[in-house]
Amino acid sequence: MPQQRAEETRGRIQDAALRRFAVAGYDATSVDDICAQAGVSKGAFYHHFPTKQAIFLALMQDWLAMIDTGMDAVRKETVPETLISMTNLLPGVFAAAEDRLPMFLEFWLQASRDETVWKAIIAPYRHFQEFFSKLIHDGMEEGSLKPVDSQVAAQVVVSLAVGLVLQGVLDPHGADWEKTARESMQILMNGLAK
Amino acid sequence: MPQQRAEETRGRIQDAALRRFAVAGYDATSVDDICAQAGVSKGAFYHHFPTKQAIFLALMQDWLAMIDTGMDAVRKETVPETLISMTNLLPGVFAAAEDRLPMFLEFWLQASRDETVWKAIIAPYRHFQEFFSKLIHDGMEEGSLKPVDSQVAAQVVVSLAVGLVLQGVLDPHGADWEKTARESMQILMNGLAK
Repeated sequence: MPQQRAEETRGRIQDAALRRFAVAGYDATSVDDICAQAGVSKGAFYHHFPTKQAIFLALMQDWLAMIDTGMDAVRKETVPETLISMTNLLPGVFAAAEDRLPMFLEFWLQASRDETVWKAIIAPYRHFQEFFSKLIHDGMEEGSLKPVDSQVAAQVVVSLAVGLVLQGVLDPHGADWEKTARESMQILMNGLAK
Repeated sequence: MPQQRAEETRGRIQDAALRRFAVAGYDATSVDDICAQAGVSKGAFYHHFPTKQAIFLALMQDWLAMIDTGMDAVRKETVPETLISMTNLLPGVFAAAEDRLPMFLEFWLQASRDETVWKAIIAPYRHFQEFFSKLIHDGMEEGSLKPVDSQVAAQVVVSLAVGLVLQGVLDPHGADWEKTARESMQILMNGLAK
């Protein structure tokens, strides 16, 4: 089962990188550190990831895939119900973001100075923007949402989620974020739903 | 006029620090770099600021004071009108945040590992939270807003603003952010206003 063993090694390297990045930061973590934590050779590391940046991008992709899977799983009868029930995902997003926050911040920092990193950082925003734009369009088609500019309404949802996650991670005890997220979406729905 | 000269020196040091932080980053900028850029002695620097961190905090305070002044200046007849007209401030906030973003990101990064920095970072969120909570409470008193949990509604406004500023700074050409901000607030008001 060499295929399966390769997958396990890759996963172990990713877990090790996530732990090192969280503790020491992205910049301060070397490929050697990751290899030591994972218990793999440098050869094995480079077999799976050409660079340290590649492993960061893989971690981000996994995180986004996890959110995508969650969002697809909570489809309800109508779009307003779907949007409300999506706020149940936020505690999981908060928890996963907390581990990754220092890493994200370092990457945003690099993004502000490096075009390649910037493109990788901005892609998920645009991805979620498209996702919610389509969902809101569906809501208007099914007649559950008032006529609205779906791009703008999607922007509101994404901005609200970004703002909630950022504040929730920075200030976990500043509010009951799960309740805040649900009630925030409810307020938004009062304006959007028919 | 020693008082006035002292103020000028202080301002020159702050401007120099802002420029160096934006170009090279907070961590990579030394007090020597700031003094060289400002054309002042190290003695003059330490007369005004005990540490490099103190100058960052002063820059943040100035930025917040600028936003506060702007928010007080746009009070309209009713609370919904006030909230809508506040979105006109966002382009200025975007522009000022763009210069400061790398510095903020480095500071958030430090905040995630250092309690003192964290408290300085979290204060403005709580400040704006209080401000909007009071404004929304006023709106219910004057009868222009529906009965709502003012803490939660304030959280929605702050989260939306944080999310818009972050995305606007990271992806300036991803949307017409001024229009998006105004229309986002309008959608929110559809749910909040009577």
